[in-house]
Amino acid sequence: MEGLRHRRRSDYVYFLSYRTRWSDNDQYAHINNSVYYHLFDSIINTYLISHCHLSPTEASSIGLVVSSFCHFFAPLSFPTVVELGLRVNKLGTSSVTYEVGVFEENEEIPSAVGGYTHVFVESRSRKSIPMSQTLREGLAKILSGKADARL
Amino acid sequence: MEGLRHRRRSDYVYFLSYRTRWSDNDQYAHINNSVYYHLFDSIINTYLISHCHLSPTEASSIGLVVSSFCHFFAPLSFPTVVELGLRVNKLGTSSVTYEVGVFEENEEIPSAVGGYTHVFVESRSRKSIPMSQTLREGLAKILSGKADARL
Amino acid sequence: MEGLRHRRRSDYVYFLSYRTRWSDNDQYAHINNSVYYHLFDSIINTYLISHCHLSPTEASSIGLVVSSFCHFFAPLSFPTVVELGLRVNKLGTSSVTYEVGVFEENEEIPSAVGGYTHVFVESRSRKSIPMSQTLREGLAKILSGKADARL
Amino acid sequence: MEGLRHRRRSDYVYFLSYRTRWSDNDQYAHINNSVYYHLFDSIINTYLISHCHLSPTEASSIGLVVSSFCHFFAPLSFPTVVELGLRVNKLGTSSVTYEVGVFEENEEIPSAVGGYTHVFVESRSRKSIPMSQTLREGLAKILSGKADARL
Repeated sequence: MEGLRHRRRSDYVYFLSYRTRWSDNDQYAHINNSVYYHLFDSIINTYLISHCHLSPTEASSIGLVVSSFCHFFAPLSFPTVVELGLRVNKLGTSSVTYEVGVFEENEEIPSAVGGYTHVFVESRSRKSIPMSQTLREGLAKILSGKADARL
Repeated sequence: MEGLRHRRRSDYVYFLSYRTRWSDNDQYAHINNSVYYHLFDSIINTYLISHCHLSPTEASSIGLVVSSFCHFFAPLSFPTVVELGLRVNKLGTSSVTYEVGVFEENEEIPSAVGGYTHVFVESRSRKSIPMSQTLREGLAKILSGKADARL
Repeated sequence: MEGLRHRRRSDYVYFLSYRTRWSDNDQYAHINNSVYYHLFDSIINTYLISHCHLSPTEASSIGLVVSSFCHFFAPLSFPTVVELGLRVNKLGTSSVTYEVGVFEENEEIPSAVGGYTHVFVESRSRKSIPMSQTLREGLAKILSGKADARL
Repeated sequence: MEGLRHRRRSDYVYFLSYRTRWSDNDQYAHINNSVYYHLFDSIINTYLISHCHLSPTEASSIGLVVSSFCHFFAPLSFPTVVELGLRVNKLGTSSVTYEVGVFEENEEIPSAVGGYTHVFVESRSRKSIPMSQTLREGLAKILSGKADARL
């Protein structure tokens, strides 16, 4: 996991900024570790909705998180605005592994790096199914190391 | 409370925009009612920090919420970006009543209007004390109906 | 609202206890005001599911919150366990107004009292409709001041 | 990580139950992945407070999370009550690695297993320091594989 410490902004493809909230700080006056996972969910699902045609309420297939992780390198604190960078590290037939870098404004070095793996399932039965072509093409655009990994 | 339904952007003084998060939506696929209070806390405390010199970790006096309310006029849903407008409705010796309007981008009519009353207390003893002159002056700048109620 | 300060456990009908969470405390080391609304949502929806046959994922009608409020009388802090009491103050054709008292263990006097009004809507169109007979009968059991207001 | 799938209740030492909340469910109608981390924080800090004499507001040393992870095996949904089991996997001079199993009531097989590593730091400077003897003794009681790993 040492490699994650060397991530820079240029390692990510899709960016969104999030204003932090008062309740993101826990009683140690820094953004609580759990909040980073809320932010991962937010950038990933925004990308799925805006670039992969996902409609969470209508979709016949949805992504379920099977594992997640985060490494915390430096604390952040409300009311900072954080910038998140997203990339796809692995794109399978029915699963995808995302990585997210969390940056303070104007910082090149991430404050935290984490991510998770989605397995796509049929939305009613919750059984694993191959992801749609549309979804796969959208995710391929931010696949790390690909020549076309630029939006 | 009917009056709140007629609020427009021009009724507020200080604005911030917040990107909504995946977990703001509850299982009815709209921003959960509780989330609005997290947003109220966020714009109010950002204003206190950035315009009234509040330092939450160092302050000798802090604001405690004694009552809060919200009226919901129209649903909002992730991944929308919401714009919040803040004003002060009542400024006392040791208490202040804030009002917040929640707007969708490019909308003049609020989706929700709410707010709360802070009573300032000594941070250790939690006993009510008059607010500092700095704090009062900062809050007076967004007091509704005042000639100087513009930042 | 002064009357709410005089509520006691006997003013409520349906009770559940909730273990507080680390992130319920904000950086002032007490349960954040927004968290109370999460708890209101929790006891109300649990009652609707367990006593009124609501199935949130299948229901043809769902309750939307149109207004909410809370009065805070005494601070609470993680890791306390809180006990919530629920009653219905007003039961209309398509709307219901709930009140919730928040108590510390073994305390007769509430730390906070609040609640909200649900308007029932058709789950697809989100248009107001009369609540079902089943729902109404379930809610009538906790209607304040009724002879049968005991579960 | 395959081993985590074979965890049973007997692999954990300290247990607490948590009532889930309405907003724990995301719009896919199951407990959102981020919520598990809020629960990890809650059982860990409750143990530190109740069994290791930690006072979060007074402590000269506090634990900061440097990395966290979770594996999700089966979905959970509000309004279920979850039972969490805690153990310590590694106890160093200034750091400790916790593991938490999340169980449905009456289930032997965990729905999720995760955890995190705390590094203890001086609360003002946030520099790493050895944990206190009291803290270390408290944590040793739930160290996995120890003869005394029973409360």
